[in-house]
Amino acid sequence: MVRIFLQMLFLIGGALTARGPHRGFLDLMVEDEALEGSGFLPPIVEHHRHRILQPPPERAMPRQPLCPFGCQCGRRVVQCSDLGLSEVPADIPKDTTLLDLQGNKITEIKDDAFKGLHHLQILILVNNKIVRIHARALVPLVSLQRLHLSRNNLLEVPTSLPSSLVELRLHENKIRKVPATALSGLAHLYALEMGDNPLENKGIENGAFQDLDRLAYIRISEAHLESIPKGLPSHISELHLDGNKITTVNDGDLKGLAHLSKLGLGHNAITAVANGSLEGARNLQEVHLNDNKLTTVPRDLRNLKYTRAVFLHNNDISALDAEAFCRTNGRVKKTLYTAISLYGNPIHYWDVPPSIYRCTAGNGALQLGNLRK
Amino acid sequence: MVRIFLQMLFLIGGALTARGPHRGFLDLMVEDEALEGSGFLPPIVEHHRHRILQPPPERAMPRQPLCPFGCQCGRRVVQCSDLGLSEVPADIPKDTTLLDLQGNKITEIKDDAFKGLHHLQILILVNNKIVRIHARALVPLVSLQRLHLSRNNLLEVPTSLPSSLVELRLHENKIRKVPATALSGLAHLYALEMGDNPLENKGIENGAFQDLDRLAYIRISEAHLESIPKGLPSHISELHLDGNKITTVNDGDLKGLAHLSKLGLGHNAITAVANGSLEGARNLQEVHLNDNKLTTVPRDLRNLKYTRAVFLHNNDISALDAEAFCRTNGRVKKTLYTAISLYGNPIHYWDVPPSIYRCTAGNGALQLGNLRK
Repeated sequence: MVRIFLQMLFLIGGALTARGPHRGFLDLMVEDEALEGSGFLPPIVEHHRHRILQPPPERAMPRQPLCPFGCQCGRRVVQCSDLGLSEVPADIPKDTTLLDLQGNKITEIKDDAFKGLHHLQILILVNNKIVRIHARALVPLVSLQRLHLSRNNLLEVPTSLPSSLVELRLHENKIRKVPATALSGLAHLYALEMGDNPLENKGIENGAFQDLDRLAYIRISEAHLESIPKGLPSHISELHLDGNKITTVNDGDLKGLAHLSKLGLGHNAITAVANGSLEGARNLQEVHLNDNKLTTVPRDLRNLKYTRAVFLHNNDISALDAEAFCRTNGRVKKTLYTAISLYGNPIHYWDVPPSIYRCTAGNGALQLGNLRK
Repeated sequence: MVRIFLQMLFLIGGALTARGPHRGFLDLMVEDEALEGSGFLPPIVEHHRHRILQPPPERAMPRQPLCPFGCQCGRRVVQCSDLGLSEVPADIPKDTTLLDLQGNKITEIKDDAFKGLHHLQILILVNNKIVRIHARALVPLVSLQRLHLSRNNLLEVPTSLPSSLVELRLHENKIRKVPATALSGLAHLYALEMGDNPLENKGIENGAFQDLDRLAYIRISEAHLESIPKGLPSHISELHLDGNKITTVNDGDLKGLAHLSKLGLGHNAITAVANGSLEGARNLQEVHLNDNKLTTVPRDLRNLKYTRAVFLHNNDISALDAEAFCRTNGRVKKTLYTAISLYGNPIHYWDVPPSIYRCTAGNGALQLGNLRK
């Protein structure tokens, strides 16, 4: 009932001041010095200044911009975090580009929650109690680029996501399922973060990542994966799967990932990296395999041309081959390593073949067990 | 040790690409369509594109921008949320303007954590476990405008805050103390959010708000306040104190707050609003006194010229004076009410003097108990 009141109140309250011409996305979150003069005035000041400096005239009701009670509304930015809201406020200005609703008590996103917010680019819903997003709720958000849904109670990746999405964050929900169609059509998605969910491999339906032609960053850390998911988009440059239950890296797991630059597989239960499995990602620069159960250095490393950093600390590696990190015959030109970590393995400095230092940018780049703090 | 490695690695890894001329703050968070062409490419793409489209040459190591592992680094934006970090990464590009570290496990901000980040404007540390911020840690942040520290374990408002701050959010910490000097010198502070802390009136030291000449928005909701804090800055336009233990609004509490437009005092234990107490805030437009223990409509309301909305639902009001909301002799020109809520009070529609409808913008603006759902 309060909501209906507020709606009435603000509908009567007056329209927003006219906006300048569209200037891209750049005036979100913070202010343009050139526009505000001082560089310190936040967007909200613009609206309040009128009220503050000019006492309301006797006859006319002072015009007040549309803004939900307790929120701070600036130029196209609506900040409603930590207000104890149980639902999305109804009276959000239609030209809003950034809506921050984090830290509230929202349990459900209803079908008309974002009605008319065609200009919304960033929607922050982190730290609510969202279980359900109505299938039509996000449809009006035709300009949405960043959707932050971390720390909620979602059970699966929402469907009907706007095709304009560039970044989707779903960290710390209760997601067990990535429906085959949930991410379909997200041709602009660049970063996908799904860490800290009880997601198993079987929960990722076939073809779930199929349309993600621009995906560069994917992170499914601290989940329940037992192997590297199948069907990863071929353009990814970063794959972060640390903190799962992965036991082996299989031949074919990284096949075709020619752009993969950073691979995070630390804190798993990996006992073996199959020969040939890393070669599918021939441009790897940084490999994290620390805190696993490896007994040997993965053989593929010597064949990767651009690997600069390999983290193998806290494994069970007890011996090093002379060619463990690079070939000694000089046939393959390799980038020198700036970091190889081996501490936390049953290995001593006298076990290291001198030839290994030929692969490093300096002797200090190799960190062994005896330096472990 | 991993940190030292990474530092070395990236120091060697190459410098950042040169930036264009300073263009204000506008390219944070999202992208300028004009700059990127498509409007969909996020800042991070700019760095990756080089790597993706041009395979690394045989002889040169591909240059990689400085970026902590697992973070996404775009043009002056460093996104390191939800990575399980236990401290602030060391290898943050010096030209970073937005640093997002939310959802990590940081317990302490050390003295050199933000060394050299002179351009940082937005620092998001929400959802960590920060107990202590070293007195010198924030000193390098000479450009910092927004500091988000909500959902941490801080025991008091940090001292040595940058004087450039515009917004400070401290929601949901364990703050019991606002030291007299903590906010001193924050002449640009516009919004202060300290809700959901165990803060009592005695924890706010004398003069704590003294220097806040530009403060417009203050929120200390869901705290342990027993009265309206003393010494509020005279320019505030919004005061939100809902969900406290306030028992009375005393004469003088709002004295001199000539710019106060919105007052939130819902969900307290208010039994009385002293005559004259609201008149100190003569430009009040919206007053929330719902969910209290009022037995009468505060007498001052009739004298406030610009009040458009008064929320009095869920109180113990049993009778209405003919002049409860405006004078009937017409001497004072008042803005008509668009919302008066009275449901949840022991009052019936036949108890409402017809003259009250003279104050409202329409009969529907008055909501009584019989309409309560």
